[in-house]
Amino acid sequence: MPDSLYPAANPPALAERLAQVRARSLALAEGLSPEDMVVQSMPDASPVKWHLAHTTWFFETFVLGPQAGQPPLRPEWGYLFNSYYEAAGPRHPRPRRGLLTRPPVAEVLEWRSLVDRRLMDFLAQDPSAEAQALIELGLNHEQQHQELILTDLKHLLSGNSLMPAYRERPEQEPSPAPPLGWAEHPGGLAEIGWDGKGFAFDNEGPRHKVWLEPFAIADRPVTCGEWLAFMADGGYRDPSLWLSDGWAAVRAEGWEAPAYWRRDEDGGWVQFTLAGERPVNQAEPVAHVSLYEADAFARWASAQWTGARLPTEAEWEMTVGGRKPTGGFADAWRFHPQPLTGPSWWGEVWEWTGSAYLAYPGFRPAEGAVGEYNGKFMSGQMVLRGGSCATPEGHVRPTYRNFFPPAARWQFSGLRLARDLE
Amino acid sequence: MPDSLYPAANPPALAERLAQVRARSLALAEGLSPEDMVVQSMPDASPVKWHLAHTTWFFETFVLGPQAGQPPLRPEWGYLFNSYYEAAGPRHPRPRRGLLTRPPVAEVLEWRSLVDRRLMDFLAQDPSAEAQALIELGLNHEQQHQELILTDLKHLLSGNSLMPAYRERPEQEPSPAPPLGWAEHPGGLAEIGWDGKGFAFDNEGPRHKVWLEPFAIADRPVTCGEWLAFMADGGYRDPSLWLSDGWAAVRAEGWEAPAYWRRDEDGGWVQFTLAGERPVNQAEPVAHVSLYEADAFARWASAQWTGARLPTEAEWEMTVGGRKPTGGFADAWRFHPQPLTGPSWWGEVWEWTGSAYLAYPGFRPAEGAVGEYNGKFMSGQMVLRGGSCATPEGHVRPTYRNFFPPAARWQFSGLRLARDLE
Amino acid sequence: MPDSLYPAANPPALAERLAQVRARSLALAEGLSPEDMVVQSMPDASPVKWHLAHTTWFFETFVLGPQAGQPPLRPEWGYLFNSYYEAAGPRHPRPRRGLLTRPPVAEVLEWRSLVDRRLMDFLAQDPSAEAQALIELGLNHEQQHQELILTDLKHLLSGNSLMPAYRERPEQEPSPAPPLGWAEHPGGLAEIGWDGKGFAFDNEGPRHKVWLEPFAIADRPVTCGEWLAFMADGGYRDPSLWLSDGWAAVRAEGWEAPAYWRRDEDGGWVQFTLAGERPVNQAEPVAHVSLYEADAFARWASAQWTGARLPTEAEWEMTVGGRKPTGGFADAWRFHPQPLTGPSWWGEVWEWTGSAYLAYPGFRPAEGAVGEYNGKFMSGQMVLRGGSCATPEGHVRPTYRNFFPPAARWQFSGLRLARDLE
Amino acid sequence: MPDSLYPAANPPALAERLAQVRARSLALAEGLSPEDMVVQSMPDASPVKWHLAHTTWFFETFVLGPQAGQPPLRPEWGYLFNSYYEAAGPRHPRPRRGLLTRPPVAEVLEWRSLVDRRLMDFLAQDPSAEAQALIELGLNHEQQHQELILTDLKHLLSGNSLMPAYRERPEQEPSPAPPLGWAEHPGGLAEIGWDGKGFAFDNEGPRHKVWLEPFAIADRPVTCGEWLAFMADGGYRDPSLWLSDGWAAVRAEGWEAPAYWRRDEDGGWVQFTLAGERPVNQAEPVAHVSLYEADAFARWASAQWTGARLPTEAEWEMTVGGRKPTGGFADAWRFHPQPLTGPSWWGEVWEWTGSAYLAYPGFRPAEGAVGEYNGKFMSGQMVLRGGSCATPEGHVRPTYRNFFPPAARWQFSGLRLARDLE
Repeated sequence: MPDSLYPAANPPALAERLAQVRARSLALAEGLSPEDMVVQSMPDASPVKWHLAHTTWFFETFVLGPQAGQPPLRPEWGYLFNSYYEAAGPRHPRPRRGLLTRPPVAEVLEWRSLVDRRLMDFLAQDPSAEAQALIELGLNHEQQHQELILTDLKHLLSGNSLMPAYRERPEQEPSPAPPLGWAEHPGGLAEIGWDGKGFAFDNEGPRHKVWLEPFAIADRPVTCGEWLAFMADGGYRDPSLWLSDGWAAVRAEGWEAPAYWRRDEDGGWVQFTLAGERPVNQAEPVAHVSLYEADAFARWASAQWTGARLPTEAEWEMTVGGRKPTGGFADAWRFHPQPLTGPSWWGEVWEWTGSAYLAYPGFRPAEGAVGEYNGKFMSGQMVLRGGSCATPEGHVRPTYRNFFPPAARWQFSGLRLARDLE
Repeated sequence: MPDSLYPAANPPALAERLAQVRARSLALAEGLSPEDMVVQSMPDASPVKWHLAHTTWFFETFVLGPQAGQPPLRPEWGYLFNSYYEAAGPRHPRPRRGLLTRPPVAEVLEWRSLVDRRLMDFLAQDPSAEAQALIELGLNHEQQHQELILTDLKHLLSGNSLMPAYRERPEQEPSPAPPLGWAEHPGGLAEIGWDGKGFAFDNEGPRHKVWLEPFAIADRPVTCGEWLAFMADGGYRDPSLWLSDGWAAVRAEGWEAPAYWRRDEDGGWVQFTLAGERPVNQAEPVAHVSLYEADAFARWASAQWTGARLPTEAEWEMTVGGRKPTGGFADAWRFHPQPLTGPSWWGEVWEWTGSAYLAYPGFRPAEGAVGEYNGKFMSGQMVLRGGSCATPEGHVRPTYRNFFPPAARWQFSGLRLARDLE
Repeated sequence: MPDSLYPAANPPALAERLAQVRARSLALAEGLSPEDMVVQSMPDASPVKWHLAHTTWFFETFVLGPQAGQPPLRPEWGYLFNSYYEAAGPRHPRPRRGLLTRPPVAEVLEWRSLVDRRLMDFLAQDPSAEAQALIELGLNHEQQHQELILTDLKHLLSGNSLMPAYRERPEQEPSPAPPLGWAEHPGGLAEIGWDGKGFAFDNEGPRHKVWLEPFAIADRPVTCGEWLAFMADGGYRDPSLWLSDGWAAVRAEGWEAPAYWRRDEDGGWVQFTLAGERPVNQAEPVAHVSLYEADAFARWASAQWTGARLPTEAEWEMTVGGRKPTGGFADAWRFHPQPLTGPSWWGEVWEWTGSAYLAYPGFRPAEGAVGEYNGKFMSGQMVLRGGSCATPEGHVRPTYRNFFPPAARWQFSGLRLARDLE
Repeated sequence: MPDSLYPAANPPALAERLAQVRARSLALAEGLSPEDMVVQSMPDASPVKWHLAHTTWFFETFVLGPQAGQPPLRPEWGYLFNSYYEAAGPRHPRPRRGLLTRPPVAEVLEWRSLVDRRLMDFLAQDPSAEAQALIELGLNHEQQHQELILTDLKHLLSGNSLMPAYRERPEQEPSPAPPLGWAEHPGGLAEIGWDGKGFAFDNEGPRHKVWLEPFAIADRPVTCGEWLAFMADGGYRDPSLWLSDGWAAVRAEGWEAPAYWRRDEDGGWVQFTLAGERPVNQAEPVAHVSLYEADAFARWASAQWTGARLPTEAEWEMTVGGRKPTGGFADAWRFHPQPLTGPSWWGEVWEWTGSAYLAYPGFRPAEGAVGEYNGKFMSGQMVLRGGSCATPEGHVRPTYRNFFPPAARWQFSGLRLARDLE
């Protein structure tokens, strides 16, 4: 990671931010039992305890070691809590993270606090710009894991027939979705990507030119009500709507609704949320759909809106990215998309785009081990833009590139329609 | 289960036994964290919490409900803690038992104690002989799960590179194995199976005649020292020693030693035990070998002892079964086979036999839902006889039939040689 | 294989038999295209060309080489046509036998005829008893492959929606099944296994004593009509009838009828046969059922006949084995079980027994490479007795032990009921 | 497919072309046995007979039926030879195409000739422009299958340890690779995609603008000699060179060289070709590498050429696409890349690009069932440009978009380097 990638904050501000971000991770774990924190529900997900430990390992390995000359406090844990950094040595296999009943939660928390102390002490010594940049990277990294804590926990709890709640949430009245409007863009030569101000991940740059054809983009995400119409119209049964791989997934997985949806005893649809099982609310943005489902929905919707499709990431950035987020960032503790009452820009659900996750022209991974952070995943995944009800406040930006494989459904992933203009 | 299968103990004695057995399960869990108790390390194994809950569910479902007319205290948990009883309704899938972070350990323990209270109250009311027989069955069932708690926990902890200990145990001096002697049997018509005295599982009867040819059986199990010789002689690399399915397993799984063995940095062999990693002791009975490995070892040993093979279960019962166990039943808390110093009969390791697990002539499963206990597993498994260092004291008998698939290695399974006499 | 295992025929008689058996293999391939002969439809099955080549390889490898000192004519084909003999070197993987488009059928047939010529010349030189015994073994081996040619071909053709016929066969009038009678046996000490007269495989001996309890055995196999009643009564939907592994297979494979059965457009049941698709005839012995299905059927039938179950192989040999086969051996070209008109002993379908395929007491595999013939498969399989409509005339005997895994259905495998007598 | 997509040739010219293309398919099958033509070596490949039948089915289903009102000659074969057209009804599962021993090759060839006759008669009746366009599509479709016939056959024959040759080819003297030169491009706004002249597939349009940064592109593909250097330098063992999915493939598949390469007994590298096994020639373009391998090679090469990477498809089209192919199109019967002697543009091997296979802006699939031809595969695949030694002469163009999953290796797929200019 070139230290020129983003300007260092001044150390005192960074210390305050460090305290805040690290505390929020712990706050997310409040009320969870050690049992809730140790189990891994699928190879793609990780236990809460592992997230808390891995983010700490990240600071020890990439900051305190190389920048502060401090060897790890728990060297024997390095093998357990390295995620995928080949340069940092061998590691515990990802699908077996749930076997790690030891060290117990209490020891991990104690270690977290010792590492925090060391980081604070290090910040008090006016560290180099590079060191500060790495701490900033670590904080952004931790925020990503905060969202994963929530999505992984949701997946875990959903596998329990008791349908347990993580956090209580008041019931909401059902409401209709607002009408759909379109924002138009005339096309032409545009510039996207990180402009050099503030923090960004390496994959958001370099800033570069793209040519856009005229297009329109919806003024809100697709809602559960619209999704119910897609389902009622046989959307999950008509192969002509689906990509070939998508149709194979529908049949292999038996998909007939978004993840976490279930038809209840009365024939209505309910969804598992982090507050337990709730009726599907038509006004909510739909979440937990795969790229395949989002793409099929758009094809279905083109009967109503000619040429409906997913936006490219450049289209999204030039339109939605320029709007003020209307999502839940001000209150990052809802953990469920809010019902819409009018136009809604980004922040409720991650929005699948039609763009493959590939390098921007001239992209170079950050240098050193953190160069493995993003670049090596540029294969087989699709870009999502925006941010979700589970994204920490202040974490995302218009240039932010999230990415997941096209079949993934356990994230808060929804969609927004676009269409060509003549 | 016909109530005639075994005579009821008198209620006060049964109450004392109930208290004892149930307390031992809890004692096994002492010192474990909730994390240790919730994780499932493979589909064949179950979490400790699940074992504690399932054994309680067994009493509620098969005793307190039908015999005492008491509906379950936690009806919504029935789905979670039924193991395989189709007659008791649908159930949580076995490979996903490790997802059950809720109910937490504390609630399961509270429920256990409420159910114990109800059972004690019920016993005080002089219940029917059938009810007492079912309680006795439940206690034997619980003892089986006590051994599984240990084997499943061993498997779980072995997956952690920290090599954590469950219980500390003093180091032992290495010692040589005693020489091998042979006990001879003249053959002829013999009778095996449960003789109607005391408790037995349905699969141990009916008692019936079998014809035996003259044979000899070893006076102790095969030791780790002998196993090292088998390994050094290329035992894991010579297909002519192996059953076809066994050789396929060797290649697919990469077996080159018993489960839990590892070559350490100095080239010596160490084994993971419930007291952490220890050097392999030549005088110990070998454990954690599959039927395939036991069978290959016997074929290899026939170069030294002509016709060496595994004994049949009838041969075992007519010889070893008549000896006093020399294993660890007096102290069921060692959790590791003891080094041998002379002839050793049963009790250190389960001993694979060459007999398939099938019904005895005239076998009928117990009536009712508990009829699913044993009979439906009479396919694809092999019989083990004896008992192990992890078997609760007083649980086994000479007619006891344990059974596992031929590739299973996570039990304390070893072997004893037999051979034909002219 | 000890040369004492079976007495050698005199060379001229053996030569005649050689000519006959080898010619029958070719006759089975008549009318097949090279395409029909090269394809492998599943890992358990082999292409017809492979069968023709492998049986030839067997004579070259185990007779002409070691006994006649003649190196193989096509040494480079040894790798392709060795089945499972580790002692004969590495081999082409079984699941990939269908990739062998070369050598073409014509070259294999030419090679067959050269090897036949060599064998004839060798027989004319009055070879040793051992050599003759090995030729006899080779002929019996070839006959086993003749049956496999038919079952493997049936499996292959059934995968083609054109439902092609291998051999035409006139339509049969539907007929009712004859009533079921029972033959009783008083039990006691009995002797089973090869008595030393004529050819037998090594696994049929040694002859040995077994103790039998009194039992009865049905005077004919289970018919398709009875199987339809089992199906109509929900036999495939009631877990209480099934072994645990069997029920898992029912659900995983979606079994709801024997293999090759299909409900036609009118709701009736039709079955694919080697003469194309035909209506299911109630009077025919049911075929193509697994051990699991046979076992479940017997449990279902015990509602009508108390204690109904599969016979053990000893029970079968002491009763059915002593009767004259009523099956199709006189005309080995029907390739489909005949409708029954009265008591029927063995020969229409292989009959699953309740016995695991294990070594008889004192069993030793034949010496040398042919020792791999039978012994190494004594694990995980069940014994079938009798013989089928696809078994070559003269191939089987009362002591013959066929064996397949309990889930196998592509053989002509049916069942005959037994039950305990008081 | 809009009939405006490409201008119709006049019918007589089309008839001549039809005769030529259809004859070439038959010529490719010359010398193959029916056995060679029926076997399927993996789910991704299809039998030669199936290719010959499917291309015929295409004309019957999309031309003779809807355009000429002629029902299919073999309606019962429709199920067998439909590839993936959901709109054309259910179909035989792709991984089981190798089971179709019937209809035999002879019947398929007879049917081909009847369909050809019908097409010729239809062309003589001055069919509509739409009909002519569909025939043109069918011819291009058939040419694609001609290349697949060769690649699928190569895969099949390579699975036979006899290493059989499809066509003999004279040995070549080893030669050194020519030096590598770079062609530069200044970047800027460019236009790519089909310009409306002559035939193109729907996925080649619409023509559209793209913005390019300055770049250079190599004047020849990467050679086997360079690949050997990559291997010798540990390219297959260094995770830092690989995409994450690529590294997982290296480990799961055990890749250590391109497909079809094998280290011979002397330690040199040989490769299986359609002329049998040959020494690897350093001057040949490397083929049969996956996108993952191509990408890793480029990263490795960036040590020598800063910023070396795969070109985007737009970069390729604007540079290489404008050159005259130097590949083997003039002689489409070599079936193996030629050694290079100087700059080489397209035509020896398909060249992986760094572009995901996605829709161009404004893309609409062709209308009707042929709309399934390309669009539904726009997920999870990468674009290859150029053409190979196995591509029929005249089939490809500068705008042609070939596509395969990133792990595919059985095509003649190689690569050409690009790099950024400041």
